[in-house]
Amino acid sequence: MTNPTAAMLVIGDEILSGRTRDANMHHLAGELTGRGIRLREVRIVPDEHDRIVEAVIALRAAHDHLFTSGGIGPTHDDITADAVAAALGAKIDVRGDARALLAAHYQRTGLELNAARLRMARIPDGADLIENPVSAAPGFSLENVHVMAGVPAIFQAMLSGLLPRIAGGAPLLSQMLDVGRGEGEIATPLGELAQRFPGLSFGSYPYLRNGAHGTQVVIRGTDAGQLDAAMVELSKLLGRTG
Amino acid sequence: MTNPTAAMLVIGDEILSGRTRDANMHHLAGELTGRGIRLREVRIVPDEHDRIVEAVIALRAAHDHLFTSGGIGPTHDDITADAVAAALGAKIDVRGDARALLAAHYQRTGLELNAARLRMARIPDGADLIENPVSAAPGFSLENVHVMAGVPAIFQAMLSGLLPRIAGGAPLLSQMLDVGRGEGEIATPLGELAQRFPGLSFGSYPYLRNGAHGTQVVIRGTDAGQLDAAMVELSKLLGRTG
Repeated sequence: MTNPTAAMLVIGDEILSGRTRDANMHHLAGELTGRGIRLREVRIVPDEHDRIVEAVIALRAAHDHLFTSGGIGPTHDDITADAVAAALGAKIDVRGDARALLAAHYQRTGLELNAARLRMARIPDGADLIENPVSAAPGFSLENVHVMAGVPAIFQAMLSGLLPRIAGGAPLLSQMLDVGRGEGEIATPLGELAQRFPGLSFGSYPYLRNGAHGTQVVIRGTDAGQLDAAMVELSKLLGRTG
Repeated sequence: MTNPTAAMLVIGDEILSGRTRDANMHHLAGELTGRGIRLREVRIVPDEHDRIVEAVIALRAAHDHLFTSGGIGPTHDDITADAVAAALGAKIDVRGDARALLAAHYQRTGLELNAARLRMARIPDGADLIENPVSAAPGFSLENVHVMAGVPAIFQAMLSGLLPRIAGGAPLLSQMLDVGRGEGEIATPLGELAQRFPGLSFGSYPYLRNGAHGTQVVIRGTDAGQLDAAMVELSKLLGRTG
């Protein structure tokens, strides 16, 4: 299995305090899976320089790609770009190309490109800009680190511009069977089936609906033939009519 | 500021694949903040022994408490209890008190306490059980690690039983001002205000509503007097009528 791996770093006091419910992780997870990229870890850290630097260093070393969200606006708590530059040992300053994007945007909207807004043009040397079609201030990719905004509409727009530039992998296929029985009823046969198909991963997700226990069994893998074969076996073993 | 700190570890392939949207993190964040416990980091890792062990060791060392969710059911992919025991060097096996809880539950419901369900009675030596009023299978606290289920209704029920046993801290207060202007308009005065109140944290959260940019400014801290003073200054500087 040659699927690229990825991690995500969410920078946000507001998520750790419970004020805001993160929406970007779920969106990124679905998009990456759809392109055959395995999201292997997510971390959420506060708006603190040292914590961001430490997480960037660890996560980009362990995975093919690191996607970050949050902390690239104009205010004093927006420190992600500088922290990523520090983590990668890159110089950072206001860059002409990013500044031009902001200048054009604020001219169009009649607002002033003041000192605070100019901070959003701080881009590390060697980084490629990620377009922001919503509010102009760009994200950037520096080596394998992709830095995007935290506002969900902007995060999603940046991601859809970025993803075509990143190589995907074999499609990550999945099939699901909804079993009208609790996990405890099916655990033993399911475990045996999982051992017979070591190239696939078998997940079982219990739910309670109207007081009744049920389980969704999800089989994941990249080999469509194996997946079909396992699903046939699973249906025989555990299907509602089996 | 003597507030206890906490981290959360979410164990779940289904969240990393984008199949499921995590709900427990947001719930935990709100509950901890309400008790004066600072949630300082969240990690999400796959259902893999080594990854869970590594994260438990790192997170419990860096924080006063570690809360985990997911991976304590009866199926082959439920490996959290054993991984936590391994991380803390504790012995783990089916324990009489947990077994008795399960036996009573399954007798009541007329189901069999089979080998798979008995796995849910695997509890490390020295751990305190966390009650599960929904489906009996308990969580546990081992030293500063609190292991709970992933199903949100069960996670929430376990947490409400657990939290009264954990010492909280000074209330984490916050006040919010909704400023009908974009972040770029307010960033400079906001940054100056933040410097004048080093004991407080100032967050600014931009939003787009009907095409108009606005910002919510949140001030957080434990000193109510300081917070009130900062809020008065903030309203003078940035209030809609200011």
